[in-house]
Amino acid sequence: MRMAELSRRSGVPTATIKYYLREGLLPPGEPTAPNQAEYGQQHLDRLDLVRALREAAGLPIATIARVFAAMDRHREDTPPEYLSIAVGALSEPLAVPEDQIEAYARAQAQVAELLHLLGWNVDPDSPGHDDLVRAVVGVHRFLPGLITETKQLVPFGRTVRSLADVEIPETYDPAVDRSAVLRFSVLGTVLFEPVLLALRKLAHTDRIRHTAAWRRRR
Amino acid sequence: MRMAELSRRSGVPTATIKYYLREGLLPPGEPTAPNQAEYGQQHLDRLDLVRALREAAGLPIATIARVFAAMDRHREDTPPEYLSIAVGALSEPLAVPEDQIEAYARAQAQVAELLHLLGWNVDPDSPGHDDLVRAVVGVHRFLPGLITETKQLVPFGRTVRSLADVEIPETYDPAVDRSAVLRFSVLGTVLFEPVLLALRKLAHTDRIRHTAAWRRRR
Repeated sequence: MRMAELSRRSGVPTATIKYYLREGLLPPGEPTAPNQAEYGQQHLDRLDLVRALREAAGLPIATIARVFAAMDRHREDTPPEYLSIAVGALSEPLAVPEDQIEAYARAQAQVAELLHLLGWNVDPDSPGHDDLVRAVVGVHRFLPGLITETKQLVPFGRTVRSLADVEIPETYDPAVDRSAVLRFSVLGTVLFEPVLLALRKLAHTDRIRHTAAWRRRR
Repeated sequence: MRMAELSRRSGVPTATIKYYLREGLLPPGEPTAPNQAEYGQQHLDRLDLVRALREAAGLPIATIARVFAAMDRHREDTPPEYLSIAVGALSEPLAVPEDQIEAYARAQAQVAELLHLLGWNVDPDSPGHDDLVRAVVGVHRFLPGLITETKQLVPFGRTVRSLADVEIPETYDPAVDRSAVLRFSVLGTVLFEPVLLALRKLAHTDRIRHTAAWRRRR
């Protein structure tokens, strides 16, 4: 299909499609004449994914471009690893400020200890590792008394690990289209994050109200 | 202390402090002379909280202003409720787009059903409720097959509820300074979110690698 039809079928204005092409969010179409190209289903799929990542997950264009680059670069890798790579690209790379080298080193050691306690088969390159280091630095800095011992984090790890069994099927069907699996992994990661965080806030209110009830009974 | 000392002790430039005063993030100082005011410990505490919410949690100024307004407005409420109100102000108010009224109504019904299944003592005004509605709309829109039945969300609710018991102490010590409890509640909510999300990504990798090992054994 031509650009005009791609715009009509995707609901994305042509100016936006041209911007996405320039930013590398969309692969170029098949050239058919000077200043003319043919677009296909992969372009429609990707525009849908861009919309989901922007509108539902609120990701910046730069992050989406990084995720797509990772998806394209590792298209031929084996399934578990190429999923990890795409999900890993969702995170900002770790940048340690000059004046916080010690704080980051301490957090890195604590994360390593935690992963050892949990016995997980992950490494410092795994998605989430650097996010966790950054998050622990933030907690230490602004709520210094909160995590005094690494083992306090173990229940949180065990809990999200038990959810992973629910979230990720035990086997992949090799017949399933690879780009569908990728879409599911990336979107499943980001669209489910606000579900979990919202449930956590509601759970806190339920907990607090039980606490209050308990206090009134005394 | 004067503005200059407030700046020195907090490490926040005076231009930024003036901006925060204009935006209502800081209460005005005690006027001592024309164009002169006296600032105190509450200003230092609040500048520290602004820094945490901006730098560690990445919240926009408008959100921080909303949280502070809620904290100040409900200063005299009883402890459980005023904590909820401050945490609730972290969320964007629900705005339903004209063309998604049905999708939101469906999500609202599903959230009500879920909270009933979980048996939580919460209501549509509780923090997280509107976030959950919005998140469910996003999942339905972009991953339509993911949540076909509300009961699929129950394990996620039970899990975060079990963490709430770890996160929130069973009783509040009435002797503890109220603003310290508020700081802890707001910061504990937002600084721990990236910890949970990072652990979830790592847990997914562990799960996927076990899956792969299982497949290779066959």
